[in-house]
Amino acid sequence: MNLNEKIREVQDFPKEGIGFKDITPLFNDKEALQYIIQQLSQQLKDLNIDIIVGPEARGFLVGTPVAFNMGVGFVPVRKPGKLPWETVKYEYELEYGTDALEIHKDAIKPGQRVAIVDDLLATGGTVLAAAKLVEKLGGEVVSLNFLIELAFLNGRENLKDYSVQSLVIYED
Amino acid sequence: MNLNEKIREVQDFPKEGIGFKDITPLFNDKEALQYIIQQLSQQLKDLNIDIIVGPEARGFLVGTPVAFNMGVGFVPVRKPGKLPWETVKYEYELEYGTDALEIHKDAIKPGQRVAIVDDLLATGGTVLAAAKLVEKLGGEVVSLNFLIELAFLNGRENLKDYSVQSLVIYED
Repeated sequence: MNLNEKIREVQDFPKEGIGFKDITPLFNDKEALQYIIQQLSQQLKDLNIDIIVGPEARGFLVGTPVAFNMGVGFVPVRKPGKLPWETVKYEYELEYGTDALEIHKDAIKPGQRVAIVDDLLATGGTVLAAAKLVEKLGGEVVSLNFLIELAFLNGRENLKDYSVQSLVIYED
Repeated sequence: MNLNEKIREVQDFPKEGIGFKDITPLFNDKEALQYIIQQLSQQLKDLNIDIIVGPEARGFLVGTPVAFNMGVGFVPVRKPGKLPWETVKYEYELEYGTDALEIHKDAIKPGQRVAIVDDLLATGGTVLAAAKLVEKLGGEVVSLNFLIELAFLNGRENLKDYSVQSLVIYED
């Protein structure tokens, strides 16, 4: 299936000069939704994954059906203040200022094998923060899996300690 | 399966006096995740559903695996400014002030049969807004399906024009 033609490019979102990859047409299309979830599950099937972790909010769209399809659990990683129970936090640098993500303290058991699934690999800051949170809880980050990768932003450089796979790669 | 014992009650979240139903342990538990998605799919299977709609962000957790499992498409409903392309907006009243939700203009085709799936039925404001958006685009809202219903908040009163089903109902 040509996923490329089902991804909509939206100019100047979220700010001027950025060409945003809109994945909503992929999810709207029942064949495309089956295809992407099966492909992502296929990439992970021999890795003995215990838990899929997905960052809010688009990581939920991709990660929960993969977890369901693989018969494993799903754990959300969220912005500060969104998870109701006790959390562990990880702060990370942005171009201007800092941002942070949280995970529930009991979300990962030590030794569990974790795959982090998200819609987009850009610079890799969000997924690196999610990986650090999993490791703080004693989990092993076995794989990072993306629907789309913007290869020209060199996110893999940032994630060089991890195994990275993407379904659709944009070279420029 | 007793879902009740896998839902964690968190006191005073998001504000004092509220006992929040934390569904993250349900998603973390692989058997519970299979069970809830199969149960929700079962409730919808004879309704000729074309599209599942889910409000951000917890509606994504529940709605996308249901759409995947049923072999239909998924459409996100989001807070203003989050969806990248052209949207239709619906504003609704809160206790103090107003809130709004958006849907992509091309997300639903006229005549499509839609189920709206969310984690929680409280007063029903969010899901009613989502239903109005679907109807603005010409879709038919066939069913509203929730993981949890707080029956003492009388959300069904607000949603009396629709068919409502919930997996776990709290009477007080």
